Amino acid sequence: MPNNYQSVHHYMEASQKAFEIYQHSTLQQRATLLHQIGDSIQQISSTLIEVAATETHLSHKRLLTEIKRTIFQLQNYGDYCATGEWMDIRIDTHNTSDQQHLIPDLRKMMVPLGPVLVFGAANFPFAYSTAGGDTASGLAAGCSVVVKAHPGHVETGKLVAAAVREAIKICNLPEDIFIHIEDISVETGEALVKHPLTKAVGFTGSYKGGKQIFDWGNQREIPIPVFAEMSSVNPVFILPEKLAIDGAHIAQKLAASITLDVGQFCTNPGIIVCVNDEAYNNFETLLVTECKKVTPQTMLNKGIGLNFKDKKQQMLQEQTVTTLIDNSNETEAAVTIAKTTAQAFLANIALQDEVFGPFSLMVCCKNIDEMQAVAQHLKGQLTATIFTTDAGFEQHPTLMQQIKNLAGRIIFNNVPTGVTVCLAMQHGGPFPSSTDSRFTSVGADGMKRFARPQTYQNWPNALLPKELQNENPLGIFRTVNNVLTKAAITPYL
Amino acid sequence: MPNNYQSVHHYMEASQKAFEIYQHSTLQQRATLLHQIGDSIQQISSTLIEVAATETHLSHKRLLTEIKRTIFQLQNYGDYCATGEWMDIRIDTHNTSDQQHLIPDLRKMMVPLGPVLVFGAANFPFAYSTAGGDTASGLAAGCSVVVKAHPGHVETGKLVAAAVREAIKICNLPEDIFIHIEDISVETGEALVKHPLTKAVGFTGSYKGGKQIFDWGNQREIPIPVFAEMSSVNPVFILPEKLAIDGAHIAQKLAASITLDVGQFCTNPGIIVCVNDEAYNNFETLLVTECKKVTPQTMLNKGIGLNFKDKKQQMLQEQTVTTLIDNSNETEAAVTIAKTTAQAFLANIALQDEVFGPFSLMVCCKNIDEMQAVAQHLKGQLTATIFTTDAGFEQHPTLMQQIKNLAGRIIFNNVPTGVTVCLAMQHGGPFPSSTDSRFTSVGADGMKRFARPQTYQNWPNALLPKELQNENPLGIFRTVNNVLTKAAITPYL
Repeated sequence: MPNNYQSVHHYMEASQKAFEIYQHSTLQQRATLLHQIGDSIQQISSTLIEVAATETHLSHKRLLTEIKRTIFQLQNYGDYCATGEWMDIRIDTHNTSDQQHLIPDLRKMMVPLGPVLVFGAANFPFAYSTAGGDTASGLAAGCSVVVKAHPGHVETGKLVAAAVREAIKICNLPEDIFIHIEDISVETGEALVKHPLTKAVGFTGSYKGGKQIFDWGNQREIPIPVFAEMSSVNPVFILPEKLAIDGAHIAQKLAASITLDVGQFCTNPGIIVCVNDEAYNNFETLLVTECKKVTPQTMLNKGIGLNFKDKKQQMLQEQTVTTLIDNSNETEAAVTIAKTTAQAFLANIALQDEVFGPFSLMVCCKNIDEMQAVAQHLKGQLTATIFTTDAGFEQHPTLMQQIKNLAGRIIFNNVPTGVTVCLAMQHGGPFPSSTDSRFTSVGADGMKRFARPQTYQNWPNALLPKELQNENPLGIFRTVNNVLTKAAITPYL
Repeated sequence: MPNNYQSVHHYMEASQKAFEIYQHSTLQQRATLLHQIGDSIQQISSTLIEVAATETHLSHKRLLTEIKRTIFQLQNYGDYCATGEWMDIRIDTHNTSDQQHLIPDLRKMMVPLGPVLVFGAANFPFAYSTAGGDTASGLAAGCSVVVKAHPGHVETGKLVAAAVREAIKICNLPEDIFIHIEDISVETGEALVKHPLTKAVGFTGSYKGGKQIFDWGNQREIPIPVFAEMSSVNPVFILPEKLAIDGAHIAQKLAASITLDVGQFCTNPGIIVCVNDEAYNNFETLLVTECKKVTPQTMLNKGIGLNFKDKKQQMLQEQTVTTLIDNSNETEAAVTIAKTTAQAFLANIALQDEVFGPFSLMVCCKNIDEMQAVAQHLKGQLTATIFTTDAGFEQHPTLMQQIKNLAGRIIFNNVPTGVTVCLAMQHGGPFPSSTDSRFTSVGADGMKRFARPQTYQNWPNALLPKELQNENPLGIFRTVNNVLTKAAITPYL
């Protein structure tokens, strides 16, 4: 996509100008746009897969799945946008029956924040990048979007960006509601975050990058919300009673989850907490056996490959850490499993660091008390997983609650990888897994990151946005005088 | 209220311990608690009014209204809490009909963040203080609450705190879910914000105080959300066509709003933007005449009185500012109205500073273009007001949109003072009026500041929280497979 603007300032001014028009778009127009972007991507999907495969080393099969997910995501957010339910509309009409609490007519809906800046992820060239979840959320919320291309897949980004711009053209919307910046320097990123016209940021990536952007956002003269999805080791707690009866099955599932796409998922299970008993010994053997079957593969790019090697090496060099399997070669990674004690884990915060790639650390506890201490000690997570029998769950309420408090999503007897795009998904959790646990970056609720409630007081019905008019012309669910309803309002005479 | 804890650390540990129990409270338990707090406050309301009147110089009448509002607020938030609608429950059930988008069973609800720290406001000893909106929001969300007493009304705070603790006792809940700290030093405030167990902050007050707390919150090793409602000058835009036909009425309304309770409201109209024509001259005379009728009164406390005097003086000493009326004496304030041109206003950012108290600056524009430039130039606000005819609204869409973009609440042909407690209220707007425009500190939606979504994946029905169980035992509105409904779920067999 050719770009005629010379500097960050020009980009942001163009985005702002487009926003000023686009903020008036109807919910249906936004939905149509998102569907159209999906169609435009669909049309070039084979080219996209070829280019992305070259840039990221991800398999064609995986990339096809990811494109499908990206298109589904755009459609899904578009459809939910059109329902208007995400706007949390509340209407309190002028009430004359109760003189003591006489209230003016107040009507609240969501309005867009303004130009949103998106930093895509290395590991998802489609679903979390140029036309990924953050972009879809921003456009659905009525914001213009500026994407800074990810250095790991600039060419893929360019092609997707062209498809987005084509869709905007087809929909007759202002072209600059989407701007793709291919200058990948850190300075440009910093200038974009700090530009006064930038009103919010979405980021998916490393802790270092996300935290830096979060700090820049907060240190501005006018701070802006930065939702950064960052670092998570996604602890898996396996209760001894469950391990005793289901160890083989769990070992199989976990080995597959740890090594899926060379472990390059933000929900990769990086820590496995067990009680060190006989069943555990069998489980450990089974897990290592499963992992031995995995063939080394090239990681997303050279930088990520080197980072995995370094971080993994650091971990294995810790005195209290034993290597169970470390199967990689000079250029490719398979899987590394290491082991430590709960006591060592509690004494060394570095053992909680994320090793991005196919790595897991087994944390062996003497008993449930130590397991609780580990749960208490862990940082905030995207996910936490519990393997237990129903009886085990009932027997250990404190541990169960501690695990729940850790994360945005709690998985029962299954693995954390696989982030379904649906309304009930929560992708975001206590810091450092994200910078604000009150929001999600997956699922249509993600658009709430980029919108704010605004109340109209005592407005004539005809001058209100359609969403708030008495007749409810859009047929939206609204909370009217504390009752959730689609009914029209009979105005007080 | 006697307090046996010796330090911030002990306070926060006690709050955390209480939270660990209270987080399991049912919605109905929380609602009952909030009602009970209201009842306990009601019982001592005459004493409360006496003490608060001594500490704040607010009139008995005003304090009575405020106590009623505080009790109503507690009841209202309690009732809304019990509906469960604020939890935005989303359920996507295991779907076997569509193999391509096979999804696990995912169920999302709100869970409390943890101990919430509350800093009350000088100007609302009840409604925005010890048992005010932030405390009610925190308790409704399932959080424990630590209140730092406001230096301006410590004795009132103590009495209210005792009533809250009594209510907690009556409800058989852990006593430390509410802790009142009477050490009012800045150091204690800082230590409370920075304590690792503090999970969120609510603040109402000055820009200086709020911004400092916001920065402390973000600079922590684990940053926490700080909702600070701070500085707002609540601009009022009067279109010339409206001024020509309704000037006298508007002058009366504005004079009353500017001087209400010595102008000590966060929604006080501090800037009035007009076009300088003949109608304006009449309006100015009328406004000054109305203001002349106002008798000087003592402000909340000595510090606030001195601050008003200083800030007002600074404003009047600006070369481009003319004084229209400045009616105060050594110890009491009535009202100050000053005047400047749009050009001068645009050239000097200091003219946007909030003068807390009965002060308004008239900004005289040559035409609508200058009015637009002023709207464009203004910082973020809690409220913005438009006085216009319907025709004027239609004729100036750009100006209307610029005004809308300024604030959280947009008032049509009325004054901004008077913040109704209801679900449709938005009290919070773009920075610096608040630190996060996506939330409100008035209305039951305020509890969303202190809760986060959490998703349960593949949990057995019996082990889910009641809110998420198939049978919908609490009868809550839930979005099930994208449809908002109170229906039970028929599990897939």
